[in-house]
Amino acid sequence: MNAELKPGERLDDLQINGYHIIQHPEKFCFGMDAVLLSSFAGCQPDSKVADFGTGTGVIPILLTAKTDAAHIDALEIQLESADMAKRSVQLNGLTDKIQIIDGDIKEASQILGKASYDYVITNPPYMNNNHGLKNPDMPKAIARHEILCTLEDVIREATLVLKPGGHFIMVHRPFRLIEIITCLTKYKLEPKRIRFVHPFAHKEPNMVLIDAVRGGNSMVKIESPLIIYSAPGQYTQEILNIYHC
Amino acid sequence: MNAELKPGERLDDLQINGYHIIQHPEKFCFGMDAVLLSSFAGCQPDSKVADFGTGTGVIPILLTAKTDAAHIDALEIQLESADMAKRSVQLNGLTDKIQIIDGDIKEASQILGKASYDYVITNPPYMNNNHGLKNPDMPKAIARHEILCTLEDVIREATLVLKPGGHFIMVHRPFRLIEIITCLTKYKLEPKRIRFVHPFAHKEPNMVLIDAVRGGNSMVKIESPLIIYSAPGQYTQEILNIYHC
Repeated sequence: MNAELKPGERLDDLQINGYHIIQHPEKFCFGMDAVLLSSFAGCQPDSKVADFGTGTGVIPILLTAKTDAAHIDALEIQLESADMAKRSVQLNGLTDKIQIIDGDIKEASQILGKASYDYVITNPPYMNNNHGLKNPDMPKAIARHEILCTLEDVIREATLVLKPGGHFIMVHRPFRLIEIITCLTKYKLEPKRIRFVHPFAHKEPNMVLIDAVRGGNSMVKIESPLIIYSAPGQYTQEILNIYHC
Repeated sequence: MNAELKPGERLDDLQINGYHIIQHPEKFCFGMDAVLLSSFAGCQPDSKVADFGTGTGVIPILLTAKTDAAHIDALEIQLESADMAKRSVQLNGLTDKIQIIDGDIKEASQILGKASYDYVITNPPYMNNNHGLKNPDMPKAIARHEILCTLEDVIREATLVLKPGGHFIMVHRPFRLIEIITCLTKYKLEPKRIRFVHPFAHKEPNMVLIDAVRGGNSMVKIESPLIIYSAPGQYTQEILNIYHC
């Protein structure tokens, strides 16, 4: 499969269904957030899914392994990432299920059409212009900071492409939870499930997984904590299950 | 001290500073929520505190033991509970620090004055008219259901009596978190600390503690989970510390 690789790229084993992914270690590699998000999504069989800002395509590839989603349209604005994602989809034989689309999240509803998806899933940039230093390496900076789109752009376009009752599934940083909830409810996306991810059982969370329903009523389930490590360097059984099932 | 008791009442040891509290087991007894809330509040020395809906006065009495708050004004609409609270304050020798006031939360800003408190603390009714069966025993029903005041009444009056930068400290049920956050931000109370309380480490939370600041910026800290039991019937060390320090 190495024939597919361009200079500087690497082929990584996703440890599920024999799938692999092309990444460029100097640009951006997916993290645990994408894996936990794909597992949290719980897409129903035959559902139509949009991934906003797919990067190298890890989320759609994992979703095809973890769920029976019928089809996934994945938007990516960075052409180099989208190119890697397209080649990964091809080498995994998933071209009938996943379409990687060069495009801007800010125009998602024009590109994908309105009220036509059961799920929008996204691992968006976490930091806005007030948060920390920007990465001077542009592909990483675009993936991590709200340079090309804001949280509000993501949420506004998500609600437009979702069917009524459709799910918006996002991973983000807990410190932005209030902004996230305020913005979701502004666009009639009602959080129904929230799960915090803690590095250790007694530590504060460093990620939050959110499932919001377009037009849902106001009653949320805060799920049990998702704990990463049972001891330093030792994943919990739940994390091992998420990575290997 | 039994001389203070009326028929049906009971004197309970609060296990802290030698304090006791008068309760009526057939009306309403305080729960763990009030204890956790008093500990979570962290009132600064010399601060002025208002307690909205004090019931039998457990929160102000615990606050005088756990913090160096200068003064606590505690509102209670149910005259029988307020009467028990007043007698408990007297028998603990706390009349210089705690004032129990017969009054309605809906009129708190008229009764207590505007922009004059450093903290508003409240253990409000958790259920609205859509949630579960109302308790046919009226004092319990009023304490548990939004019969005499709504969540919005509590939050509106809290922001009015707080100084700019003052803290609103509340315990509530996690399933209402989105409503709570939406209402807090509507009234310019910005959640800065949120802590979920879980019966066991691997269970979903059944209480949430919130510290919101009047006029704060939008960045929240989700704290480590507060776990009640380490095994069935066995409190965690943190709960033991909260009860006995």
